[in-house]
Amino acid sequence: MAEHISKQFDLELETIRTRVLQMGGLVEAQIVGAIDGLMSSDIAKLDKVIAEDALVNAMEVSLDEECQHIIARRQPAASDLRMVITVIKTITDLERIGDEAQKVARMGKTILLADRVHMPRFREIQKMAEVALAMLRRALDAFARLDVAGALDVARQDRKLDEEFDANFRQLVTFMMEDPRAISMSIDTIFMCKAIERIGDHAKNISEYVVYLVKGKDIRHTALEDVERIEL
Amino acid sequence: MAEHISKQFDLELETIRTRVLQMGGLVEAQIVGAIDGLMSSDIAKLDKVIAEDALVNAMEVSLDEECQHIIARRQPAASDLRMVITVIKTITDLERIGDEAQKVARMGKTILLADRVHMPRFREIQKMAEVALAMLRRALDAFARLDVAGALDVARQDRKLDEEFDANFRQLVTFMMEDPRAISMSIDTIFMCKAIERIGDHAKNISEYVVYLVKGKDIRHTALEDVERIEL
Repeated sequence: MAEHISKQFDLELETIRTRVLQMGGLVEAQIVGAIDGLMSSDIAKLDKVIAEDALVNAMEVSLDEECQHIIARRQPAASDLRMVITVIKTITDLERIGDEAQKVARMGKTILLADRVHMPRFREIQKMAEVALAMLRRALDAFARLDVAGALDVARQDRKLDEEFDANFRQLVTFMMEDPRAISMSIDTIFMCKAIERIGDHAKNISEYVVYLVKGKDIRHTALEDVERIEL
Repeated sequence: MAEHISKQFDLELETIRTRVLQMGGLVEAQIVGAIDGLMSSDIAKLDKVIAEDALVNAMEVSLDEECQHIIARRQPAASDLRMVITVIKTITDLERIGDEAQKVARMGKTILLADRVHMPRFREIQKMAEVALAMLRRALDAFARLDVAGALDVARQDRKLDEEFDANFRQLVTFMMEDPRAISMSIDTIFMCKAIERIGDHAKNISEYVVYLVKGKDIRHTALEDVERIEL
């Protein structure tokens, strides 16, 4: 009987872990869809991303409630409890990533429909999105395989993403100063880059939860150099 | 013995609730300090806000671990478990609010030290911050008193905050088009307003957790009108 219950519990934990990865796959697709929609001027693709937000939100609510049921019913201790709490926090960050992808899609749609003379610099947005997407995939992979090294990689990539944002930003301010007609376009580009940068922040949050989960050590708020020293 | 354990548990729950409110008070003080520092050109005040970030982070880590200990040790069911999970989520949002306040202080410090000709429009930032601060106080008050009506008020105020941001933004774009020398200042102002807007978002998140806590109903992602209809 105890073994049966224990196997059921293992199955429940495995199920929520799988559902987290499914939710992760969905928001990854939203990011890809938003960028593809921009680059190919495909309004239908952007609309699909916008519509998917409701599904992402529903997954968050459902998974959150399932996690609380598991805690109440199975009364997990120590590392199993940390796993479930990690899932609760991770799905919040995934839902926020989906929100940012939706914002990029909405902003892109508004811009494309306005048929403006000066178009935003989608290429810069695409390059940042590639980095953010890689960070998200690595964070989810680190979660799936409980891989601390992979999780720490994400923190490194976040610096790279912030540097790309700063570089894009300085470039856009220069454009605005050279040509006031480019101001509106530049502002739109900055806001879309900011949304991508926040996706990277959320991916970094997820990777930090993974390190805490595996090491029982909270590295949030610990400088990257200190963490790397701990790992050696 | 059971009564003793039960009383101890009640005390533990009361203690973490009190600590959440203390943490809330600290990030409120950071917002106030950042704005006061800007308006009175007080670098020391801004430095204090920046330094307080380490304390806010430490409070989050400590409270998070205490919550997990309580869950493992007391195995709370139903509403007590929801309370503890609510605390775990709330402290994450409070920590992020502290981050945004710190960003405003850092940006303000950089601007003041640069001694620029065109200064950012701190008055607009101050007005937005007053709304965001009221939202945070109301959300924490709603948490303390388990007050759904107060929590719903915060969602309404968030719309008002977003509208103020949009109005400020349009005004600043106009300035930039009229005078390219005002571009740098305008961008700084926009980024500080964005940080304030995100503080409002986090306050709204906290108020939504309170509604979920009290009603056992997840109103996150539910339109404000639908929620108000539910309440009637």
